[in-house]
Amino acid sequence: MNDPARSWWGWGRRHDALSDAECVELAHLLPGLAEAPLPVPDVSDLHLPAPRLRAPTSLEHLCSADPADRAAHTFGQAYRDVVRALYGQLSTPPDLVAYPRGELHIVELLDWAMSNSIAVIPYGGGSSVVGGVEYRGGDHRGTLSLDLSALGEVLEVDPVNRAARIQAGAFGPALEDQLRPHGYTLRHFPQSFEFSTLGGWLATRAAGHYATLHTHIDDFVESLRVLTPAGTAESLRLPSSGAGPSPDRMFLGSEGTLGVITEAWMRVQDRPRYTASTPVSFAAFGDALEAVRAIAQSGLHPSNCRLLDPGEALLSGAAGGGESVLVLGFESAHFPVDEQLAHAVELAGEHGGRQRSSGGSEDDAVRSWRSAFLRMPYQRDGLARMSAIVETFETSCTWDRALGLYEAIQQELGAAVTGITGATPTINCRLTHVYPDGPAPYFTVIVPGRRGSEVAQWDEIKAAAGEILHSHRASITHHHAVGRDHRPWYDRQRPELFASVLRAAKHTLDPHGILNPGVLVD
Amino acid sequence: MNDPARSWWGWGRRHDALSDAECVELAHLLPGLAEAPLPVPDVSDLHLPAPRLRAPTSLEHLCSADPADRAAHTFGQAYRDVVRALYGQLSTPPDLVAYPRGELHIVELLDWAMSNSIAVIPYGGGSSVVGGVEYRGGDHRGTLSLDLSALGEVLEVDPVNRAARIQAGAFGPALEDQLRPHGYTLRHFPQSFEFSTLGGWLATRAAGHYATLHTHIDDFVESLRVLTPAGTAESLRLPSSGAGPSPDRMFLGSEGTLGVITEAWMRVQDRPRYTASTPVSFAAFGDALEAVRAIAQSGLHPSNCRLLDPGEALLSGAAGGGESVLVLGFESAHFPVDEQLAHAVELAGEHGGRQRSSGGSEDDAVRSWRSAFLRMPYQRDGLARMSAIVETFETSCTWDRALGLYEAIQQELGAAVTGITGATPTINCRLTHVYPDGPAPYFTVIVPGRRGSEVAQWDEIKAAAGEILHSHRASITHHHAVGRDHRPWYDRQRPELFASVLRAAKHTLDPHGILNPGVLVD
Repeated sequence: MNDPARSWWGWGRRHDALSDAECVELAHLLPGLAEAPLPVPDVSDLHLPAPRLRAPTSLEHLCSADPADRAAHTFGQAYRDVVRALYGQLSTPPDLVAYPRGELHIVELLDWAMSNSIAVIPYGGGSSVVGGVEYRGGDHRGTLSLDLSALGEVLEVDPVNRAARIQAGAFGPALEDQLRPHGYTLRHFPQSFEFSTLGGWLATRAAGHYATLHTHIDDFVESLRVLTPAGTAESLRLPSSGAGPSPDRMFLGSEGTLGVITEAWMRVQDRPRYTASTPVSFAAFGDALEAVRAIAQSGLHPSNCRLLDPGEALLSGAAGGGESVLVLGFESAHFPVDEQLAHAVELAGEHGGRQRSSGGSEDDAVRSWRSAFLRMPYQRDGLARMSAIVETFETSCTWDRALGLYEAIQQELGAAVTGITGATPTINCRLTHVYPDGPAPYFTVIVPGRRGSEVAQWDEIKAAAGEILHSHRASITHHHAVGRDHRPWYDRQRPELFASVLRAAKHTLDPHGILNPGVLVD
Repeated sequence: MNDPARSWWGWGRRHDALSDAECVELAHLLPGLAEAPLPVPDVSDLHLPAPRLRAPTSLEHLCSADPADRAAHTFGQAYRDVVRALYGQLSTPPDLVAYPRGELHIVELLDWAMSNSIAVIPYGGGSSVVGGVEYRGGDHRGTLSLDLSALGEVLEVDPVNRAARIQAGAFGPALEDQLRPHGYTLRHFPQSFEFSTLGGWLATRAAGHYATLHTHIDDFVESLRVLTPAGTAESLRLPSSGAGPSPDRMFLGSEGTLGVITEAWMRVQDRPRYTASTPVSFAAFGDALEAVRAIAQSGLHPSNCRLLDPGEALLSGAAGGGESVLVLGFESAHFPVDEQLAHAVELAGEHGGRQRSSGGSEDDAVRSWRSAFLRMPYQRDGLARMSAIVETFETSCTWDRALGLYEAIQQELGAAVTGITGATPTINCRLTHVYPDGPAPYFTVIVPGRRGSEVAQWDEIKAAAGEILHSHRASITHHHAVGRDHRPWYDRQRPELFASVLRAAKHTLDPHGILNPGVLVD
């Protein structure tokens, strides 16, 4: 059942959330915010609509109608989700939350849902920031949140093929804890690592630890097992195959609309023994982009190649004085990587990059950055309680469009946000992943909002950002998925004929349209 | 129109085919073959059935009913194709061969075919060894071979994103010739390089130059443009995206059943400036497999990691005395790779590998191996004319199954072939590509056949091989595709629900079922 230590309204664990005093203190960094934080309502004050569903006796033991469970499964973790929760606006909670403990439970729950026109929303860690787990209308008789967290085991570890069979409900830390004794790691560390699951990563094509080469979880999948209303699909364990279009690639990114991923054989990694890392500074962001392009096209494959623009560098304490900072890192379980780092630093130098001492051991730097990185969502919630509007969005585009997009977000989106809120936003950018033909920029927008209108203002800002991305032929998402919030731009981005294929696949695997309705296709 | 220098019945160019004398000489290597080669029939002696189709006036200038065109487009280049051609058994030639010179031509041809129930078989270089371009029955009013060779241009080269927009009909050499002045290369070098096209590589998920990492052409695709009977699908140029399932991955491997790929933005490479290569010998094939596994799991990413078993090593002159030989090669456009080679050799040494001088400069070794490699199909045809049965098949499996599969092919398939032909076959194996979780073995089977029954005997051998692959949970193909010859095992390998999705996609994009009927789905 639901973990009482988890926050029902915001990120992560209750006791890690900012206190009222910390919220007020944080607010001092941003002029124009509210005097006092929005109070956190108690679940008992939410007055959720009564459940419209009652599970059949055989499934009752798997299902909860507890308001705490239903409230915690109503939204994901988008800014608009957190704010609506704070205002107690939970109009469409799931009628029931099911906690299957095995595949048979899932099959029975799907059968029940199918024959009763019940919407089923597969739920991993609930960390979606794109409305991926929130039911929004439709004509279903009720909504069932299918929480897979009870399927959290590493079932097999195969040292010969260096692979592991892992259940979809495994959260990042539990998964790594179970691989560690074998000397392995999945090395998939999204910001949501603690509070997201393998199944969620696979369904949303999450990107994680590696800045280059194998950035998305996709490339570590050896085989998938998926339960659909039409039956079970399991692919053969193969290192690679050219036999027709890849079956796994159809389910990767399907966001719970085609089936419920229950387990996967994942290619795991030896734990790294050699690492080398350094920050490199640039006076001009444009030069830094050129340096990163050169490194991305060099075949060096750094594991970390994170470029922080001046605002981001300042905020994270990596640099001051308008400098951009590139954090370069290499790792290997088998051989030293100092030479690769030297090659990368040399390439950066050709574009004006100056290597800096990382001010402390590489481990310290990584640890401190990492803890700050993991605290960010809690601070986002604290700012939200002070009625700041915080929007983060990420994208990918080809190199020729990168600087133009960056400037358009700074200027056009900045102007739009000022028009919406009357205030000047802080807009920062970092490159989280890079490829030979383009980067994946990640933007953070922070601006004081109008208390009571935060969601409406956020929606306007989100729409303005989406339009700018679309007009620059940038993806509506690189790794946050589509969900419901990105649908308008996803629909314009994908080839229309592929949308038809997706609808056909949906009709084939989910003929009654019960799985995560509204996501990807209608 | 059809290139008169090309062989209509066998591999490559007429003047590169073995002469009758060379066939007889080659036959001396294999006791039990025929005395004299099968004669090569003249096209004028084939008595092809009269064309059942006549192109509308507006399309007449694109279409040929010339027997030479029809004969050359009847089969691919599988052993059974060559032998049937030699026997003049061309019962189902295309009624017409169309040579569109632009997308509008293709659209008009598809419209005509749709409204007249004409089967359309997209044709690149015709190098399929799996019956991928051969019409086999069905109830179509006629068959049109859609030869894309007139669409052979590199349309744009984009140095910023290091990508090129290339037409699907571009053959390997022409494509490289057009990239070379820009300093780029696609570095996709399948054995069919000279006689296959980009469109064919994409439609069949071909594998080429790189032994590790990016082995299939798939990973170099930035965006695809596909004409389908339902309309045109073009994906956005993106370095990577997590927005839903990948549209391109649906068309990669679709083998002409969902649409006609007309062009693609491909990620190209800088030409390598640094190379390092060496052969490593092993007394035991099992040790060699362990060494290759260690290298494949090391993150070293050699560009060449070709393991030859004792028979293959002997045949290619790489070694004698029952030794296995691993040919290791690294390359880079940006930095020396000698250290990587040293690491790989060290790993090989831990498993009993002994580095040998490559007996001449690396370039010589590569050149000589390469020319022998490119001559093989011509020799296959020469052996076929002497009524030897030559079957090559490739697969992929996980490491734990590799040695067992290797031994099963040697013993079980060997016994089966002896049962079928009464003779003892030569069965050799090499690993062409390797992955952290398994290799892609490539097998060659040569045995004297019974003149007049070569195809029947080959079919039995092919079926025996397919059954052994299936029972060892190995893929029916790693990079030769499925076509028609691999269907029985492909149908058993893929998840049945994915087959349903493929059928739904087919029905959506090709509602009249005119595109390459019989391939992948019915």
